[in-house]
Amino acid sequence: MKYAVLGTGMVGQTLATKLVSLGHEVWMGARSAGNEKAESWAEENGPNASHGTFQEAAAWADRVIFAVSGDSVLKVADLVTNEAVAGKIAIDVTNPLDTSQGMPPTLIPSLSNRTSAAEELQKRLPDAKVVKTLNTMNHKLMVDPSRVPGEHDVFVCGDDASAKEGVVAMLAEFGWSDPVDLGPLAAARGTEGLMPFWLRMWGAVGNAEFNYRIVRA
Amino acid sequence: MKYAVLGTGMVGQTLATKLVSLGHEVWMGARSAGNEKAESWAEENGPNASHGTFQEAAAWADRVIFAVSGDSVLKVADLVTNEAVAGKIAIDVTNPLDTSQGMPPTLIPSLSNRTSAAEELQKRLPDAKVVKTLNTMNHKLMVDPSRVPGEHDVFVCGDDASAKEGVVAMLAEFGWSDPVDLGPLAAARGTEGLMPFWLRMWGAVGNAEFNYRIVRA
Repeated sequence: MKYAVLGTGMVGQTLATKLVSLGHEVWMGARSAGNEKAESWAEENGPNASHGTFQEAAAWADRVIFAVSGDSVLKVADLVTNEAVAGKIAIDVTNPLDTSQGMPPTLIPSLSNRTSAAEELQKRLPDAKVVKTLNTMNHKLMVDPSRVPGEHDVFVCGDDASAKEGVVAMLAEFGWSDPVDLGPLAAARGTEGLMPFWLRMWGAVGNAEFNYRIVRA
Repeated sequence: MKYAVLGTGMVGQTLATKLVSLGHEVWMGARSAGNEKAESWAEENGPNASHGTFQEAAAWADRVIFAVSGDSVLKVADLVTNEAVAGKIAIDVTNPLDTSQGMPPTLIPSLSNRTSAAEELQKRLPDAKVVKTLNTMNHKLMVDPSRVPGEHDVFVCGDDASAKEGVVAMLAEFGWSDPVDLGPLAAARGTEGLMPFWLRMWGAVGNAEFNYRIVRA
């Protein structure tokens, strides 16, 4: 599979490196073609790793992962044409955190509560099949659930059932055996809304090596 | 212990009944002195159960539980004097849900994200010791954690350490062995923010008999 990973930060690097290690071809996308972090990443990760602009990477790929900071996801969406992602699975792992009001961050009002980053991304790129997942945990855990022992959960939501199946298959490659399907993309309001709780929990636990388990009767 | 339970709905009835069964004296508080639901509840629950206005119940009690709907918690706070609750533990189990925008509910913007129902309640009643807890689950589970098997979590937060200890002791009477302390009352932004996720999870599970477990490395 050909994956575009849009974003050069920790989350993007972790996902892109894992995908290459699984045998996929990956282009890391950045705002500019000569982005140093994307270039370094591609050099370190062998012949299946390359890089380009957000648009170049998205147009080349079969699937596109949005792994940028939550306050820039729509700016990145504006640098990608709907044509480049039409019919493709777009995996949104972002969290719309607002760091402008001090710490801990809150949620960006225009991207939360009555909407979500995922839904706004879908509006900007209407022919992409947006699926929200993996945004409820630390980036290391995303690609290696065994870092936390026992059973714990990852969530998916989206409006296209086959796209969710494709994402569930990718998650299985990462080691996630039984993702919880929360339904339509609007459920991203719920999972993105977990982040303020996660940040408090991070303080209580003392590190980021934890996850949620939904325990049922 | 003398508990005022402010609110006559399912959450208030469940908490009040459990507290009476544990041997506490309980007044159920309502907007008006002759509230039928409060009167019926008191009649059904024996000599330790009584009822009155929000203010009467709060002034009489050692501890005051706010168990009203999230959109009325501040209206109820306005019907209670700061003097009536001064120095007392005020346990806030509410969720600021906004049902005016359709289903599923969102959060009331003025009571979420950059603030919380708990913090606004504390501002209205500055001499109460507000502790947020139990708002992250179904009311039946609040007083009977064994309804869901295995280990799962309840959260507490508040600005007064001794008040949190008092609430942890009450939770222990309910069957909760090891509440997670999330720190200051502002952490209620996190736990109140779980409710939109909980509502989606309710749909995925198909019933309300589930809870969160924080799994740690």
